[in-house]
Amino acid sequence: MKKLKPLSAAALAAALALAVGFQAQAQKPRDEPIQPIEPAKVTDPAKVQLGKKLWFDPRLSRSGFISCNSCHNLSMGGSDNVAASVGDRWQKGGINSPTVLNAVLNIAQFWDGRAKDLADQAGGPIENPIEMNSTHAAAVATLQSIPGYVEEFKSIYKVDKIDIKQVTDALATFESTLVTPNSRFDKWLKGDNKAITDVELKGYELFKSTGCVACHNGPNAGGNMFMKMGVVQAYKTDHPAEGRSAVTGNEIDRFTFKVPTLRNVELTYPYFHDGAAKTLTEAVDIMGRLQLGRTYTKEENAQIVAFLKTLTGDQPQITLPILPVSSDKTPRPDPFAPIVAPMKK
Amino acid sequence: MKKLKPLSAAALAAALALAVGFQAQAQKPRDEPIQPIEPAKVTDPAKVQLGKKLWFDPRLSRSGFISCNSCHNLSMGGSDNVAASVGDRWQKGGINSPTVLNAVLNIAQFWDGRAKDLADQAGGPIENPIEMNSTHAAAVATLQSIPGYVEEFKSIYKVDKIDIKQVTDALATFESTLVTPNSRFDKWLKGDNKAITDVELKGYELFKSTGCVACHNGPNAGGNMFMKMGVVQAYKTDHPAEGRSAVTGNEIDRFTFKVPTLRNVELTYPYFHDGAAKTLTEAVDIMGRLQLGRTYTKEENAQIVAFLKTLTGDQPQITLPILPVSSDKTPRPDPFAPIVAPMKK
Repeated sequence: MKKLKPLSAAALAAALALAVGFQAQAQKPRDEPIQPIEPAKVTDPAKVQLGKKLWFDPRLSRSGFISCNSCHNLSMGGSDNVAASVGDRWQKGGINSPTVLNAVLNIAQFWDGRAKDLADQAGGPIENPIEMNSTHAAAVATLQSIPGYVEEFKSIYKVDKIDIKQVTDALATFESTLVTPNSRFDKWLKGDNKAITDVELKGYELFKSTGCVACHNGPNAGGNMFMKMGVVQAYKTDHPAEGRSAVTGNEIDRFTFKVPTLRNVELTYPYFHDGAAKTLTEAVDIMGRLQLGRTYTKEENAQIVAFLKTLTGDQPQITLPILPVSSDKTPRPDPFAPIVAPMKK
Repeated sequence: MKKLKPLSAAALAAALALAVGFQAQAQKPRDEPIQPIEPAKVTDPAKVQLGKKLWFDPRLSRSGFISCNSCHNLSMGGSDNVAASVGDRWQKGGINSPTVLNAVLNIAQFWDGRAKDLADQAGGPIENPIEMNSTHAAAVATLQSIPGYVEEFKSIYKVDKIDIKQVTDALATFESTLVTPNSRFDKWLKGDNKAITDVELKGYELFKSTGCVACHNGPNAGGNMFMKMGVVQAYKTDHPAEGRSAVTGNEIDRFTFKVPTLRNVELTYPYFHDGAAKTLTEAVDIMGRLQLGRTYTKEENAQIVAFLKTLTGDQPQITLPILPVSSDKTPRPDPFAPIVAPMKK
């Protein structure tokens, strides 16, 4: 073996400085239009636990069969992986279920942004006649009949009587913990050069240079603006959703939707508000043509798809809650009960 | 303070022997017709994990919406807490969903015992036209299109091609871990005198002395024999289930069902094969009159119900699995697809 010459103190110091310099350079966070997802900060764990129970509790629905998790399944990217969700009595959902993951980062909730935040959103499906098809009054009466819930609401909200605001607050608090940090793309954003491959990086460069990033930016790679579906070329669909104009009443907002997050997009197929695009390849192709007036080559499309798959983060680890047991006074739901009020078509 | 006289060595030894004797007596397991549930022994954790994924995977159903957990919900005592389950296209289930908890201890599976074990059972709902309404071929083809599953089946079963036997084997392996040890009653059985109250003990004494235990015995407090529903007095119902005669072809078995477990019965309302009894009070009253020819007083009924609630054990702690992602080749389920074959009425 060759004997190494001992380094002088000065040479050693220089080498160390260089190494530290490289290290700092390698780990320097990148300044990009997409920012990393940060882990959830849980400040009220008891409320999160209560919200989790409500999230999985089908007794919030008329039938006793459908829970929040039915259509925003935390085993499947917080979505249901079907174009239109199944609602009460197998009614067809009005729009593709958006993922609950990272939804807390969105500018507003629902595709048309009609709810300003998660709590505002959470009350919607409970009363929607084609979703859970219950009423806030019925849902609260059920919870009030369950001693385990009464105790938890009392301990957290200091109340004897549960109301829907506490229910949606607890749900929203749980949902706000459903974020997905540590995707490979986020590691790259934080300075780990090896976290994504050359092909994935090329895909990201294309994503930026061809304009996708104009709408899909921020920590959620989307979710922070409204945009017309079909900017350059009209989107052809027989789906009835009219988009943001239903909220604003402005004709100019017709077919304008909240830009969906691309976080975990590998898990949240099918795509678009009508769930018409079955694969990422198809979605990228349609977006390129309709929004950007550009037809991606097969190779470009594959590169962008490869990049999109780096946006899958750590999925929330959820221990299934054991739901508080109904009392003898709790209404016994009957999914097959005769229809009293007519359902919305 | 009074000064204590030091004990002689002999007195100390005698006192110790007495204390140890009391201790031994207090902890001596009881010899009773119901035996404690033992914790699950997991010998193949990878197979349990695969089975858990399949358990929660709605892609085993035609619609992509119904999983095993839909009707045997592990948040709700392994049952769905409705009289009749919701199946594909909201069809009404043929019989009340029995709990999956401790089902491994049953003599056979289904109310009529037509499946000899859990693996034999697991294939049933997938193909049942009023339940998941898929076929084994379709379910396996879906799994085979999902790289994450292909890899797991290969690693566990050493196969490239998945078949339904491996699917049901993995499901059964997971289900066999779903046992509920450490109920208060089991602690009492193991010698802890303070684990149940005097009222609960009175309830258990009544449960034995009036004959309930004749059918509800063994570790599962049931599940180990078939018995006619309506021994002393006929059970009046318009429910079409005919019971064990559908399996044996013997008229004598008409209206004979597997005796359900009473483990976690507090969580598995409503009761009986038709789910007609909404509360334990009602179930105990009907059972007393129809099976034993006895009308329990209100006090006796309450005592038995109190005892039954001591049978709730530790519920399985389940971390929700993250399901392997579909590939572009995976069939995209459509809950609302036109009906091709006629459904069973």
